[in-house]
Amino acid sequence: MEDRPLVTGRGRFVDDIRMPDLLHAAFVRSAHAHARILGIDAEAARRVPGVAAVLTMDDLRPHLSGDRLVTALPSPSFRLDLHRPVLAFEETAHVGEPIAVVIALSRYVAEDAADLVEVSCEALPAVEDCRAALAPGSPVAHSSAAHNLVAEFHLGYGDVEAAFAGAAHVFREKLWQHRGGGHSIECRGLVARHDPVDDLLTVWSSTQTPHPARQILSDLLRRDPDRIRVVVPDVGGGFGPKLVFYPEEAVVAAAALLLGRPVKWIEDRREHFVATTQERDQYWDVELAVDADARILGVRGSMIHDHGAYSARGTNVPYGAAAAMPLPYMVPAYRLDVRCAATNKVPVTPVRGAGQPQGVFAMERLLDRAAQALGLDRDEIRRRNLVPAERMPYATPLKTRGGMQVVLDSGDYPGCQALALLRAGWEGFAARKATARAAGRRIGIGLANSVEGTGRGPYEQVRVRVAADGRVRVATGAAPMGQGTRTMLAQIVAEQLGGDMANVDVVAGDTAAVALGFGGFNSRQAVVAGSAAHAAAIAVRTRVLAAAASLLEASEADLDVEGRTVKVKGSDVTIDLGAVARAAAGLPGFAVPGGQPGLDVTESVVIDEMAYANASAVAEVEVDAGTGTVTITKITFAHDCGRVIHPGLVDGQVIGGIAHGIGNALFERMGYDADAQPVTTTLGDYLLVTAEAIPAIDLVHMSSPTALNALGVKGVGEAGVIPITAAVASAVEDALDDLGVTITGMPLSPAGLLARIRQATTP
Amino acid sequence: MEDRPLVTGRGRFVDDIRMPDLLHAAFVRSAHAHARILGIDAEAARRVPGVAAVLTMDDLRPHLSGDRLVTALPSPSFRLDLHRPVLAFEETAHVGEPIAVVIALSRYVAEDAADLVEVSCEALPAVEDCRAALAPGSPVAHSSAAHNLVAEFHLGYGDVEAAFAGAAHVFREKLWQHRGGGHSIECRGLVARHDPVDDLLTVWSSTQTPHPARQILSDLLRRDPDRIRVVVPDVGGGFGPKLVFYPEEAVVAAAALLLGRPVKWIEDRREHFVATTQERDQYWDVELAVDADARILGVRGSMIHDHGAYSARGTNVPYGAAAAMPLPYMVPAYRLDVRCAATNKVPVTPVRGAGQPQGVFAMERLLDRAAQALGLDRDEIRRRNLVPAERMPYATPLKTRGGMQVVLDSGDYPGCQALALLRAGWEGFAARKATARAAGRRIGIGLANSVEGTGRGPYEQVRVRVAADGRVRVATGAAPMGQGTRTMLAQIVAEQLGGDMANVDVVAGDTAAVALGFGGFNSRQAVVAGSAAHAAAIAVRTRVLAAAASLLEASEADLDVEGRTVKVKGSDVTIDLGAVARAAAGLPGFAVPGGQPGLDVTESVVIDEMAYANASAVAEVEVDAGTGTVTITKITFAHDCGRVIHPGLVDGQVIGGIAHGIGNALFERMGYDADAQPVTTTLGDYLLVTAEAIPAIDLVHMSSPTALNALGVKGVGEAGVIPITAAVASAVEDALDDLGVTITGMPLSPAGLLARIRQATTP
Repeated sequence: MEDRPLVTGRGRFVDDIRMPDLLHAAFVRSAHAHARILGIDAEAARRVPGVAAVLTMDDLRPHLSGDRLVTALPSPSFRLDLHRPVLAFEETAHVGEPIAVVIALSRYVAEDAADLVEVSCEALPAVEDCRAALAPGSPVAHSSAAHNLVAEFHLGYGDVEAAFAGAAHVFREKLWQHRGGGHSIECRGLVARHDPVDDLLTVWSSTQTPHPARQILSDLLRRDPDRIRVVVPDVGGGFGPKLVFYPEEAVVAAAALLLGRPVKWIEDRREHFVATTQERDQYWDVELAVDADARILGVRGSMIHDHGAYSARGTNVPYGAAAAMPLPYMVPAYRLDVRCAATNKVPVTPVRGAGQPQGVFAMERLLDRAAQALGLDRDEIRRRNLVPAERMPYATPLKTRGGMQVVLDSGDYPGCQALALLRAGWEGFAARKATARAAGRRIGIGLANSVEGTGRGPYEQVRVRVAADGRVRVATGAAPMGQGTRTMLAQIVAEQLGGDMANVDVVAGDTAAVALGFGGFNSRQAVVAGSAAHAAAIAVRTRVLAAAASLLEASEADLDVEGRTVKVKGSDVTIDLGAVARAAAGLPGFAVPGGQPGLDVTESVVIDEMAYANASAVAEVEVDAGTGTVTITKITFAHDCGRVIHPGLVDGQVIGGIAHGIGNALFERMGYDADAQPVTTTLGDYLLVTAEAIPAIDLVHMSSPTALNALGVKGVGEAGVIPITAAVASAVEDALDDLGVTITGMPLSPAGLLARIRQATTP
Repeated sequence: MEDRPLVTGRGRFVDDIRMPDLLHAAFVRSAHAHARILGIDAEAARRVPGVAAVLTMDDLRPHLSGDRLVTALPSPSFRLDLHRPVLAFEETAHVGEPIAVVIALSRYVAEDAADLVEVSCEALPAVEDCRAALAPGSPVAHSSAAHNLVAEFHLGYGDVEAAFAGAAHVFREKLWQHRGGGHSIECRGLVARHDPVDDLLTVWSSTQTPHPARQILSDLLRRDPDRIRVVVPDVGGGFGPKLVFYPEEAVVAAAALLLGRPVKWIEDRREHFVATTQERDQYWDVELAVDADARILGVRGSMIHDHGAYSARGTNVPYGAAAAMPLPYMVPAYRLDVRCAATNKVPVTPVRGAGQPQGVFAMERLLDRAAQALGLDRDEIRRRNLVPAERMPYATPLKTRGGMQVVLDSGDYPGCQALALLRAGWEGFAARKATARAAGRRIGIGLANSVEGTGRGPYEQVRVRVAADGRVRVATGAAPMGQGTRTMLAQIVAEQLGGDMANVDVVAGDTAAVALGFGGFNSRQAVVAGSAAHAAAIAVRTRVLAAAASLLEASEADLDVEGRTVKVKGSDVTIDLGAVARAAAGLPGFAVPGGQPGLDVTESVVIDEMAYANASAVAEVEVDAGTGTVTITKITFAHDCGRVIHPGLVDGQVIGGIAHGIGNALFERMGYDADAQPVTTTLGDYLLVTAEAIPAIDLVHMSSPTALNALGVKGVGEAGVIPITAAVASAVEDALDDLGVTITGMPLSPAGLLARIRQATTP
């Protein structure tokens, strides 16, 4: 429904927001990974014609409540407070960190002037490798800190030592996982305008989290939140990085207030590589203990997570990785020790999957290794260990950081794997492989299972009403980023109010539209906003029927909402929804038909527990052992997100996630040199997945509705990405099985794979 | 609370709203009371430098859904549809009717150019007198109509004919009552601005009814109501006329859309006399039937009401007059036949009191006449007939037009009269009068009782919330016009949420703040908005305590809200309200403290039945029989509006109403000549009451709380005005009792009274 304007060039993205008097911002960014700032000379820049202002932290500080952004979710795991400066002062901690902003009549002028801002720096030793960062004697990423251990925590349960002591077999893997960024088509951007008549600061931002952004701006600008409106126009992809509140948002908003003129900043792609958060390296050292029947007794190990230079969101990426690892399987004992290291690189925050692909990768690698060693089929070892359907809902021993027990609420994990295998032709693959091998072609197949916590609570607020024009209006703090949130909500609401999605308008991502909101992340919006929309729509339907019954002098039971009318069933007596809405608003001196004024209800359905979706992915690859090139030839994806609201959108989300996973498996790598200078800051150096690398995808849905919400839905936005790297790794190993190549890291570049092949085949 | 900025020059009225690019409007108005428009030549005006546009109905019509404003409340009484044109076309029906608008860089340029717009007209016969208008052969006020009978209705109950047939005495009075206008210090005005970024039309208007104005604009401009915001800035008095939606509001809004620039129009005082609605003449011919003990058996008669040229609001002024007449008394049978006549004068709509002063005047005149004839004291005849306190709640036989029975819910009418008489020294007045008379001075005393339907439903919506800064925010569609609505709401809310009114911010009269609303009229806001505020504040308090109990790990019963904190009673453990609000908004992955998200509740308490306030007024006057000059020397006013929320505001309202009543009794008269040309279009010709004419006022409150709302309040905005003309008439008659002068009309100008004195004293 909402896609047509987006795919026909009629979307309105933040850069499409134009207004008279608009000024444009360009940032002066750190060229150093780590440096002491000795001085900033902006005089030459200020003299450039068309420059309205050059602002540094010294200029902004008097107008702000503090000089740092406190955006990380609270966690007892933190050992260092690495809040980002609004603009760097005293010290810069990564290349690309904003130091000053130039506001000018055009972006061209602003960029030219930004080049004239002289930042005097003394370079400091930079921290590039997160393992080295935690080694004794490492330089520090921040000169104010005594060490680089940003956070540490231990996740687990059960008697792990006893499990390993009693194991028939133990398998150990040392894994490296790199994950790239979101790389939405649209980079970040915002326009800030202050209207002196209303004393209202409006910020149009391509953010995933408008309400939280408003609160941060309110605190930072010491400005009544009612005098700030954050609006999300059409967004060209979010994928996680846009859930973070960034220095640029604070600076541009403050500049608009200071200058009394609207200011626009649109991030360019080069900036996106050095200023927008990404994921980064994790190093895992993990062991699996199984009994003689290959049943899991325990999992243990440690992980070092590259946190980047600042805490922009929290520790949820390493936490998500650690928590995801055991989920699909019966794991009686588990312990993972996690350490997060500060480095002089762009901060790490969730990207689609938010650590879960890494956790799945680690678990699935261990299972493959065990199967290989024990001479079991890879599907068989999983089959023996998957949580059986009859155990659902299954209360795992794991507890969330909020203290709630992780309960796998629904799903048939073995059934899902079986379905994927069946569709993929797993059984017959050995024959195909032998035929290919005989023809000189190396093909392989791999399998991975994942379980994903979706629908992060506590709620999303949704307002549903019938307007005087007979249209149904929906407003929510949920934030679409191109994935069809408006369509999903319209469909849910239309189900209750006439059945016609085209009669439902959805305003999403506007703090002026509803009071409270969180936004789009953690595959949550269909669950939390969908549930609230469902509840609100039912409540409005009740009011519609009560008011119409009064107006038509009919019984509510005899009425139904059809399109834009309320109809007396089995008759041609109808009343327009708009007429009902007008009447329900009341008239001075007359009773309100139906008793309650207005066809307008706001609901916030609180859902504390996560709904766990699951997937089984089968990847087929062909490997050129001579060049190290991997071609993914087919992905079979069996997926269970409960009730599918809009099949097209669900498929789009899953397929998009799979594409993202293929990028992670084969292409995306954010490179830094030893001095933490980024070396991949163009899309020529940093490879995104392209259409040509996407194989045929066979997507099949199971539907185990969750009981945690009235719709029975689970989230789907991240599902595709989570098991892909694991399945591809498994498939590549399979293609190279005769060479004894093991895959222990991602992405698999041709050069990297070739090195592994040579290493394995060199005596 | 809200008065300090208003009385120290720091209010922000509509004319204080300034913005870049603002254009200014001046209207071309009809110089004829009734004329056919032959053509409009705007070429010369358009050529004036600085003129952006000259717009006529032909220019606007393509952009509007219709060419007339449908603003009258529906009523089966109407015999003619006299909807006002947006701009007059074909015909004008009163002097001052807008025909075209000039939009220019300044008001000066706009006015100069407006003078150059040539309207060719053919004068048509004008209808001035509403009695003559209904006589056979009268010219018609609108050439499209066959007659001038706009509306007619009959109000009453019981067997009137039998009552009169069985009466011991019957008294008849023919009364003329004129009522002037609202004449707020601030005339009308508005600023309209279209923001293309949001496609939002914002209209700042000094209206009493922002939400209805938005709906009318939405319908007329064919514009989504969500894309229109009506905001009421500080308003310098409303008094009724500003509850009407006017042509200027439609024209200025349309012009801002058409021109793409903001447009301001501020009504000047001369315009106010010919373009803002007023009340006007009523002619009553009524009879009172009493038994031998002077107990009322019945009241009957007829009334002709001057409706003006168009139906701008409905028939509620004559209806209010007719319904008010019998209210304080036990009247077993009643019938009033009402006819509303179209005239070529500015339309008539409610002014403070809305017909009720006229109804009271008619009833009280009849009672005085009966007392005089029967040799009873004026207080005694009333005492015998007032509804006794022990009959409360008293279901009168009267039914409203909405079909609800009029139930006098509470009050002690005889007690109120007794209190007024006691405070006024009624008993001892005869002696004072005799002493004065002996000294050559004519003093007199008069009495009148009134009962007023207040708190017009069905509701007003109020949103109460605690913001993250710990302040309490209240939003409502109720519309303050200087009477202290914000203070009243802040007080009601503070009672539940910490006790500190200074911690409560109220946004009133902004369609962006709450979805539904009616506004300020009919002494309703304390009742309906107050009740909703009370309910919402209680609901928010419940949430505050639940959330704080969770955060403090305490029992809700042990908590109280004090100032900006929640406190554990008997301890020094507190938590800031802002911290509770932040926590209650929730955090991803954590349970919401208290279970329900947000300290934010919107309530619309439906109150269908009116709460009846009552008053007894005693006026003392001194009359100079040689000049006809009346000086009011004292007003004693006993009043019962149930619970008094804010004594200072209540007193201010009542005293303001009394002043208004004195103006009606002695000064205000909107004069027209026989051709319906207004002859009082300056404050030199049209006399408003001045401070010097206001005597000592002894105001005393009784308090009979109503059971119709949780606060026990009744409205007070119109109370003062209602019985004043009746009490003054009675007092003047008393001062002239030896001359046999009867007062049958208002206002009492010196010349008019002198003529009556001469008529009475000329053999």
